[in-house]
Amino acid sequence: MSATIDFFFSYGSTYSYLSIMRVEGLAAAAGVAVRWRPFFARKIMEEQNNRPFLGKPVKTKYMWRDVERRAAQFGIPFNCIPPYPITPSTVPHRVGLVASRQGWCPEFSRAVYRDWFMQHKDLGQTTRVAEAVASLGHDPEKVLAEAGTPEVEVMLESETDVARKLGIFGSPTFVVGEEVFWGDDRLEIALEWWKAKK
Amino acid sequence: MSATIDFFFSYGSTYSYLSIMRVEGLAAAAGVAVRWRPFFARKIMEEQNNRPFLGKPVKTKYMWRDVERRAAQFGIPFNCIPPYPITPSTVPHRVGLVASRQGWCPEFSRAVYRDWFMQHKDLGQTTRVAEAVASLGHDPEKVLAEAGTPEVEVMLESETDVARKLGIFGSPTFVVGEEVFWGDDRLEIALEWWKAKK
Repeated sequence: MSATIDFFFSYGSTYSYLSIMRVEGLAAAAGVAVRWRPFFARKIMEEQNNRPFLGKPVKTKYMWRDVERRAAQFGIPFNCIPPYPITPSTVPHRVGLVASRQGWCPEFSRAVYRDWFMQHKDLGQTTRVAEAVASLGHDPEKVLAEAGTPEVEVMLESETDVARKLGIFGSPTFVVGEEVFWGDDRLEIALEWWKAKK
Repeated sequence: MSATIDFFFSYGSTYSYLSIMRVEGLAAAAGVAVRWRPFFARKIMEEQNNRPFLGKPVKTKYMWRDVERRAAQFGIPFNCIPPYPITPSTVPHRVGLVASRQGWCPEFSRAVYRDWFMQHKDLGQTTRVAEAVASLGHDPEKVLAEAGTPEVEVMLESETDVARKLGIFGSPTFVVGEEVFWGDDRLEIALEWWKAKK
């Protein structure tokens, strides 16, 4: 069994906010490291005609109430419903991958999600991503240039393909060995699984 | 706050199997009574273009693995994937309503679900429903005749409308006061909510 659990997530996914805020603490308590793996869920979801909220106002309204309730349960800040959906873009994902190989993906992900959920900034806008990068002390121009290289573009395609082949169809998803757990509400269960199989 | 929690569910929903098997024990431990309220989720889901598994083989495959894993976690029997989807029919729902007003809806629901999940009988077939009714010592002919009356038909429409007005969009759903909790994985949370608000 791997010494890590894989955390596949996409920027713009609402429930992923909860996981991005929770995963490090819970995984540390369980004694396992987390591999943060941004992928472009939107592509897979479009391929599979799986759009759980698009054109579904009743389900969408429930989703926000559920996120709000769960945020309160976990002591995670929530400030009314943020802009949704965000502008579709691969930029945050590509920056997430750059951050990942430089070791600051968790900080970046928390920063852009905090800006989105608390300050209601559209996470899909490149200027918003640049602001989050700058707030962490990194050079946004340099980081965005790197995120725009063909190499990083291929990396995003490749990570999305890894997710596709694992049978992942949404964000957040936790993978333990070959076992797939979809949804923030499966985070604890994924960690239990890891503990039982390690 | 009500002294009961409302358990809205539809025959044919896969995750509802887990709730049908779990709800009485957990609610009794929490000190709250359960109102079993069959409704026709399919109608609401079609109205809202919300078909989470139709034409989505990857998500469907995951759903079955998740149901199997959760059944194992809760000690609920699981015997490979049963026939799915079942034949669409309002008959089990109407029989569930008849059983409900006669006080044997939990037993009936467990019986038809057990037949479906363990013996792989198509729960949507009237003969299967009749067998489950008979297995509980009730007269299937009499029960089916009652389930076929316009009164029970109106009752199913009315219960489905109550669900619709509460913002329910799927099965199983638990309602505590006006708070809606969707999914078997929200059962414990709904009971916590009840305890906190009672």
